[in-house]
Amino acid sequence: MKNNAVIGIDIGGTGTKLAIIDSAGQILERSSFNTQAQRGGEKFIAAITNSVLELQQRMSDTHTIIGIGIGAPACDELSGTITGAANLPFTETLPVRQLVEEQCGLPTRLANDANVAAIGEGQFGGAKGMNNYALVTLGTGLGSGVIVDGKVVIGNHGLASEFGHTFVVRDGRKCGCGQNGCLETYVSATGIKRTVFELICQTTYDSPLRNYSFHQLSARDITQAAQDGDFLAQEAFRLTGEMLGYKIADLIVLFDPQAVFLAGGLALAGSLILDPAKKSLEKHTIAMFKGKSELKLSELGSEDAALLGAASLIYRR
Amino acid sequence: MKNNAVIGIDIGGTGTKLAIIDSAGQILERSSFNTQAQRGGEKFIAAITNSVLELQQRMSDTHTIIGIGIGAPACDELSGTITGAANLPFTETLPVRQLVEEQCGLPTRLANDANVAAIGEGQFGGAKGMNNYALVTLGTGLGSGVIVDGKVVIGNHGLASEFGHTFVVRDGRKCGCGQNGCLETYVSATGIKRTVFELICQTTYDSPLRNYSFHQLSARDITQAAQDGDFLAQEAFRLTGEMLGYKIADLIVLFDPQAVFLAGGLALAGSLILDPAKKSLEKHTIAMFKGKSELKLSELGSEDAALLGAASLIYRR
Repeated sequence: MKNNAVIGIDIGGTGTKLAIIDSAGQILERSSFNTQAQRGGEKFIAAITNSVLELQQRMSDTHTIIGIGIGAPACDELSGTITGAANLPFTETLPVRQLVEEQCGLPTRLANDANVAAIGEGQFGGAKGMNNYALVTLGTGLGSGVIVDGKVVIGNHGLASEFGHTFVVRDGRKCGCGQNGCLETYVSATGIKRTVFELICQTTYDSPLRNYSFHQLSARDITQAAQDGDFLAQEAFRLTGEMLGYKIADLIVLFDPQAVFLAGGLALAGSLILDPAKKSLEKHTIAMFKGKSELKLSELGSEDAALLGAASLIYRR
Repeated sequence: MKNNAVIGIDIGGTGTKLAIIDSAGQILERSSFNTQAQRGGEKFIAAITNSVLELQQRMSDTHTIIGIGIGAPACDELSGTITGAANLPFTETLPVRQLVEEQCGLPTRLANDANVAAIGEGQFGGAKGMNNYALVTLGTGLGSGVIVDGKVVIGNHGLASEFGHTFVVRDGRKCGCGQNGCLETYVSATGIKRTVFELICQTTYDSPLRNYSFHQLSARDITQAAQDGDFLAQEAFRLTGEMLGYKIADLIVLFDPQAVFLAGGLALAGSLILDPAKKSLEKHTIAMFKGKSELKLSELGSEDAALLGAASLIYRR
């Protein structure tokens, strides 16, 4: 008798990853393609479909694929479309869910990457058994997924949980969204780079980071410098964590979650970001909420979290 | 044949109001007692029970009471208790839902006053037919209720939706909760009084409000002065609305609601508070959310909104 499995797909600006995942969260087979090489919606969908059918073929003797879960940026979850994604190789509104479902003949679900990561944390990670929690992804921007009463908060137009575009500094840094002072301009891989450059110009701390141009510098470089004892880099993490904790206090009084998880590239810095964030959150938590919500790192490795989350879209139905 | 009706109860610091309400939201009978005259939990519950039985008696020929809905401050909705309410005549944790249900022999529900107001807006007011919306009550403090997917957001410990304790000014005004810069220290009946006093000390605007002590001054006085053309009072409303709109922008990116409603005493100032709040919200709304969520005044008269909301706890089950 064959076992059931799911195909998880993680659509990213650079690469699109696929995997066959069983109900215990084990990755059985993998596949991937260069997102940017598939220009245009039609070609992009064909690349997905071909990869799905090829993966399915590989395991057809032992496993029955029961569905496809897709995590992607800029989804409208209500209509199952991707629309206006800045980093994907098509500009039109693409009905991805419907096209993949039709062409692969499998039930398909599509959700925003941060929501997918939050769902995955509940299915396979640190939020197992929790009905109320949030996950914050610290990547190029800041994304979030919030689970209320066991369900993802989608909102009236499928746009909810843009925690990265809540305000943290009045009339602060210019954001790509057009506003000023959005959280992601301070707290994200890009945000901490901006903070490093602010410290470079505002202070006289010597630092190896003074040898990097803005385009050269990555969050990984800052993490490495901080781990090597560079004060400026450590200070950048302290300021970033402090702001993150301050705004997570807002999230907590609004949603009263059991826990908030940090994921994404910047969360790989571990205690460098977690410790100042926890300290700030503790300071900014009102008495009635003290000790009620925990701030933690995601338990899913950042490499496969999105794939596992995408698979969860099918498993948790 | 008798019609069904519900008893709604609005427990307030000054008075406790009760009413028999039919399924169309019509108030058929009323009753009330002085909250502070019923000192101690036992006496307070007895006052509720007696009022309920007396009301039920009055309409026993024509209506069958099918349940009791209660709105109150400081509820733990998960356990049905009221605990540590600053303005109620008992200090112990009181299992109000259970006691009223047992002593009146009717299904009873208890919810926080702001959640009750939000539910009532959906049942009888401007949010009819909406599944995702929020309501903000501007009274002595700032309360809120958020509806996601047709259900009130309660959170993991029944504490969610403390919008009044999100932060609006870093290291700003001292709040009763112990933190600094909470929204309700600026945006509430008390908040606008503090703003009037800030304007009195920071500016040289002449104003009749300079004749009031802080304890004398009420939000109604400020509203009256603004309506009479007093610039300082108008400026206080402008600043209050501006901050409110700025923070409602946060609410909107997090919850993606169809609308946000303003209720409570300060909302009676109408366009004085609504217009600057809308202008600020418009300015602080990111492009993808433009035109998606409306900011409006509650359509329920502030006198009976809590009673209607309490009745909705039964009708919407």
